[in-house]
Amino acid sequence: MQNREIRLASRPIGVPTESNFEIRQSDVPAPAEGEVLLRTLYISVDPYLRGRMREGRSYIPPFEVGQVIVSGVVAEVVESHSPLFKPGDIVMGGLLPWQLHAAVRPESLQKVDPSIAPITTALGVLGMPGLTAYFGLLDIGKPQAGETVVVSGAAGAVGTVACQIAKLKGCRVVGIAGGKEKIDYLTKELGVDTAISYKSESGHKSAAELQREVATACPKGVNVYFDNVGGEISDAVLPLITNRARIVICGLISMYNKEQLEVGLRPQPFLLINSALMQGFIVTQYALRFGEGIRQLGEWLAQGKLKYAETIVEGFENTPRAFMGLFSGENLGKQIVKVA
Amino acid sequence: MQNREIRLASRPIGVPTESNFEIRQSDVPAPAEGEVLLRTLYISVDPYLRGRMREGRSYIPPFEVGQVIVSGVVAEVVESHSPLFKPGDIVMGGLLPWQLHAAVRPESLQKVDPSIAPITTALGVLGMPGLTAYFGLLDIGKPQAGETVVVSGAAGAVGTVACQIAKLKGCRVVGIAGGKEKIDYLTKELGVDTAISYKSESGHKSAAELQREVATACPKGVNVYFDNVGGEISDAVLPLITNRARIVICGLISMYNKEQLEVGLRPQPFLLINSALMQGFIVTQYALRFGEGIRQLGEWLAQGKLKYAETIVEGFENTPRAFMGLFSGENLGKQIVKVA
Repeated sequence: MQNREIRLASRPIGVPTESNFEIRQSDVPAPAEGEVLLRTLYISVDPYLRGRMREGRSYIPPFEVGQVIVSGVVAEVVESHSPLFKPGDIVMGGLLPWQLHAAVRPESLQKVDPSIAPITTALGVLGMPGLTAYFGLLDIGKPQAGETVVVSGAAGAVGTVACQIAKLKGCRVVGIAGGKEKIDYLTKELGVDTAISYKSESGHKSAAELQREVATACPKGVNVYFDNVGGEISDAVLPLITNRARIVICGLISMYNKEQLEVGLRPQPFLLINSALMQGFIVTQYALRFGEGIRQLGEWLAQGKLKYAETIVEGFENTPRAFMGLFSGENLGKQIVKVA
Repeated sequence: MQNREIRLASRPIGVPTESNFEIRQSDVPAPAEGEVLLRTLYISVDPYLRGRMREGRSYIPPFEVGQVIVSGVVAEVVESHSPLFKPGDIVMGGLLPWQLHAAVRPESLQKVDPSIAPITTALGVLGMPGLTAYFGLLDIGKPQAGETVVVSGAAGAVGTVACQIAKLKGCRVVGIAGGKEKIDYLTKELGVDTAISYKSESGHKSAAELQREVATACPKGVNVYFDNVGGEISDAVLPLITNRARIVICGLISMYNKEQLEVGLRPQPFLLINSALMQGFIVTQYALRFGEGIRQLGEWLAQGKLKYAETIVEGFENTPRAFMGLFSGENLGKQIVKVA
């Protein structure tokens, strides 16, 4: 049986291209004692992986050139040498290799129950993106009923969940996303109060233009800003924050492909005059509370209070392209690669 | 008896000048029923007053042109129509007019006990600056023994207290200030581990140069950054923060005279990769805990664990000049005007 894997061929400079990835033939590994053999079903591509392709310190070590890339994967156990899993089990792992078949230690795998929801949700609304929205918004953003919450990257895997949780908490929610399809989805499907496109006919709206639109949508100012994007979109929101506002730095997709640290509007004056908070986080710091998050998200999903969107690309070899598409905003909701 | 008062003559553009202030003769007011007549002894000039000279929203309404300026003042009660105070009492108020004599409602005055410490300390180490350092550092910065704390504006009224509290908490403390006299004071008098001057022979060191010096002084990175200055000094510290660092935005003296919002290094990436916090605050949000703060600061002072410096300018008419001197860093410790 033939195996295939995707390695980092070179570190991207700027926006990643196909040439940064190499698809290789390999042998299906034989699982050792205690290991399981997995058949990959779905691969999650995530913006944060761009950071791992860069050298230098971050919250997670960089990929080495030549290394098989790892990310969130849903797989089927096809052979087990562990008492933890049996063949046929569906599992999810957050750091599994981009491989058709992989032999791994099973300790960090979670079982996925297909009777609860489609198994792809383990990579999205019931996985890391859902938990990221849940803990980032509730634990740092602390939205109160009646407050205004702005979400950038609102139509992405994390943003869609953040928008809906903010609505469930009784907030006025303004989503910023790119293009009509996403704007319509946010307002018509997810019940976001106002959705604003950062795209203009000629490209991107200026920060000043965007600021005017956000100001109109937020007549009482912005109490919580859940930021997935950074850059000029943040410049537009910062001047609108209220006293004691909370800014959740969840992601900075506009900056991940920059080779230099960016200059831009200094946020310190806005934080000072508003006694406001800006906080970065990484979802794994909430690992001990993942159970709570998954239970609550699952309950909302079962009650129909939480919807989700997935953009599914077919074919293992299209994984790099699906990843690259994140940076041009090609995905609505969670971007997933269907392998099988 | 002649009275004098200082009014805002015009809004400063950039660095304030004498022409922005007007000293006027007036009559000594007659206190109404319930009021007290004060004789001003000491006036506090504070960087934050610059913000009030500007139009526009901040945490406190702007001064109007023509209005008598108000700030922290220590005064003697010379006539009382209130049961709260009697003639001869020494009092402090945070929002008293720049006037030789003032008739005011006494409810917001605090009695100053000259037997505890010199009465000027009610404007410094035992007043707003001390409380600002106390609550900002302990409540937001949360320094832990063994951690590294960097303080900018370290030789100012707030910075000197922040440095010493951080030392009392068992931290390695690095102070950033301007010039040899301040550097010597920080290391030799206050026990700061390393003091760094932001000044060079030709003016100010570059952010890169400063970053190298701070990096050398902080081999384990910066756990807490207590920022009184902002701008390029912050650019030098930001890249050095550790995982879960806390950045306390206490003041931004480098930016108060800027007419435009500043661009500079975006801090969001550093907050994201370090799960770090940046928080602005204003000391009055801790008003209900001022008693606790004053007690603790007074105890440290009595035990000789807390020192303070004052720069005292004599003469009411020199109040504007003392205020302007804050922005060129002429003060060591608390800048006070002695009126009598």
